[in-house]
Amino acid sequence: MSEFRYELIKECKDTGARVGKIHTPHGVINTPIFMPVGTQATVKSLSSEDLVEMDANIILGNTYHLYLRPGQEIMKKAGGLHQFMNWNRPILTDSGGFQVFSLNELRKITEDGVEFISHLDGSKHFMTPEKAIDMQNTIGGDIIMCFDECAPAGADYEYTKKSMEMTSRWAKRCSDAHKRPEDQALFGIVQGGMFEDLRAQSVKDLTEIGFPGYSIGGLSVGESKAVMYHILDVTTPLLPKDKPRYLMGVGSLDALFEGTVRGIDMFDCVLQSRIARNGTALTSHGKVVVRNATYKEDFSPVDPECDCFVCRNYTRAYIRHLIKTNEILGARLLTYHNLYFTLRTMEKIRQAIMDDHLLAYKEAFFEKYGIAE
Amino acid sequence: MSEFRYELIKECKDTGARVGKIHTPHGVINTPIFMPVGTQATVKSLSSEDLVEMDANIILGNTYHLYLRPGQEIMKKAGGLHQFMNWNRPILTDSGGFQVFSLNELRKITEDGVEFISHLDGSKHFMTPEKAIDMQNTIGGDIIMCFDECAPAGADYEYTKKSMEMTSRWAKRCSDAHKRPEDQALFGIVQGGMFEDLRAQSVKDLTEIGFPGYSIGGLSVGESKAVMYHILDVTTPLLPKDKPRYLMGVGSLDALFEGTVRGIDMFDCVLQSRIARNGTALTSHGKVVVRNATYKEDFSPVDPECDCFVCRNYTRAYIRHLIKTNEILGARLLTYHNLYFTLRTMEKIRQAIMDDHLLAYKEAFFEKYGIAE
Repeated sequence: MSEFRYELIKECKDTGARVGKIHTPHGVINTPIFMPVGTQATVKSLSSEDLVEMDANIILGNTYHLYLRPGQEIMKKAGGLHQFMNWNRPILTDSGGFQVFSLNELRKITEDGVEFISHLDGSKHFMTPEKAIDMQNTIGGDIIMCFDECAPAGADYEYTKKSMEMTSRWAKRCSDAHKRPEDQALFGIVQGGMFEDLRAQSVKDLTEIGFPGYSIGGLSVGESKAVMYHILDVTTPLLPKDKPRYLMGVGSLDALFEGTVRGIDMFDCVLQSRIARNGTALTSHGKVVVRNATYKEDFSPVDPECDCFVCRNYTRAYIRHLIKTNEILGARLLTYHNLYFTLRTMEKIRQAIMDDHLLAYKEAFFEKYGIAE
Repeated sequence: MSEFRYELIKECKDTGARVGKIHTPHGVINTPIFMPVGTQATVKSLSSEDLVEMDANIILGNTYHLYLRPGQEIMKKAGGLHQFMNWNRPILTDSGGFQVFSLNELRKITEDGVEFISHLDGSKHFMTPEKAIDMQNTIGGDIIMCFDECAPAGADYEYTKKSMEMTSRWAKRCSDAHKRPEDQALFGIVQGGMFEDLRAQSVKDLTEIGFPGYSIGGLSVGESKAVMYHILDVTTPLLPKDKPRYLMGVGSLDALFEGTVRGIDMFDCVLQSRIARNGTALTSHGKVVVRNATYKEDFSPVDPECDCFVCRNYTRAYIRHLIKTNEILGARLLTYHNLYFTLRTMEKIRQAIMDDHLLAYKEAFFEKYGIAE
């Protein structure tokens, strides 16, 4: 891999946090970073221009969804996802594993792979580590993921152990199947549920294979945040310092801080855009349910401390009206703001690490934001 | 009225077309103009920034919808629609008459006004000319409309005559009730169905009252285009030359040309944005149903001759994917393009009038566009 490289810039003296840069063929990602999710080749309601304007460094695509629609053939003819959606900055794709398991109750898992039923049309598919990598090679993300089994919430030790071991074997198959290691960085995914020794074993298996980055999967699947943070506490220190660490599917404001102090470099979450579509804003003073009648005559900005174009130009009363009348623009304005707010918060987190006051910033942030999520 | 003024700049030597400027408190409108429709205080899916970027000179608001949501009280507290939706250019509002009649089968019409049932919650309302003007005074559009009865398609001579005469009496009441003539121009609405003498009588009634502009209502309600154009042929010449003429609710591409050559200055239509949400684009080569499977591997722009940001950056295949997956961005990109395309066409129409080759431009346009609408 000529172009992919993690550059560690600064380590926090008080916590496990670190500032770094991930160099990719489509540009640099400043870490710790929040990555907006563009499931179906679009971050819902936003254009690529919007995402550049808010300075998103990288976005996600979901392999499972893109595999079903528009499908591998069109993705190939388009020349990959960057071209297809007009996004010239870095892209990360998941492997589809999470969706295969979470969207399909009728899945059938074997050592070879997983048979699943499309949630769209009921058609039958068989996904293997090799096919997941092949699809990701076609999509062309700068960072791609091994196909893993994300064990269900509350899975017992035996199930989790077997599942983690298979995920390790699948990781080797993914590594072997990867056809574009020179311009796509394949990450291994650490599994092992809520069991410390299994997490350690997973890290050992994956680092033996050797990957340019490591993801932590199987968290935020129903466990308490205390348990999640404990698993991070015992897992992250085992990961190589010179590689980026990605906490998959986690991105509430408190988790962004708590993950960062535990050494996580990359986060993604649909929360920001999903609650936007339901009429809820993230602000420096916590969540504001703009949809509520409270705001019908509130002609102040969504977040008076935010300088995004939504907060500079539109009021809570107007956005509430749009949400109540099911106008697309309401979802669009709140999605823009919520992502903008989150990206700016990550910027401040990076600056706080550089300035040696991360814990003070964290305290000040939650003093205003509150902690209830 | 200190600020509202129609400036006639050039008359076409071959047709009734004319180029002009309408001066309003919120800026100049170049005519003939197409006005995007922002029914519920938003041109569906677009921000005010988008509309400025595409150089929309003026947009519409629908009084009926704004009366129901957010309602007059909030509109008053917001300081009017310009402030509410962050749009600092001219706004035109209809009177609500058309919606009261078209959205309400249970309406009850008397000389005093109309009782109707909200299409939203079944609540009962009574709308009068005075209340329609009061609501429009609150909304604060630069151009507002008299409350009229739009006679149903196929109404007979007797019904249409009585309806038109009542509309004339209502126009007088509207004129008397208007509380902001200094910064809102109230237009009379010519009715009279498909009957030449009734149209002439309506013009006579309204010009006797005297308005700063005249709308032609009751067209495009189900009659053939030939009939509509005939009514324009006999009506427009009766209207004062020194006042703007607005053909209400009409804006298909052929009607924009045919209305212009008959002396119309202002058009509005929901067609452009409605078909966009269904996956159809207006292009220099006619309508393109991007939603169709034909375009699933078409990586060319929506309209290769268009220079809007959508055509510069996105492909038919991508937009088809967005439409098929019900992604908001699909509707948004096509809405933007369709309005941009229409506004640019109107710009070219104005230029063609200035350059004395309107008929040649019209012929060249439809040579490429086709005529089927």
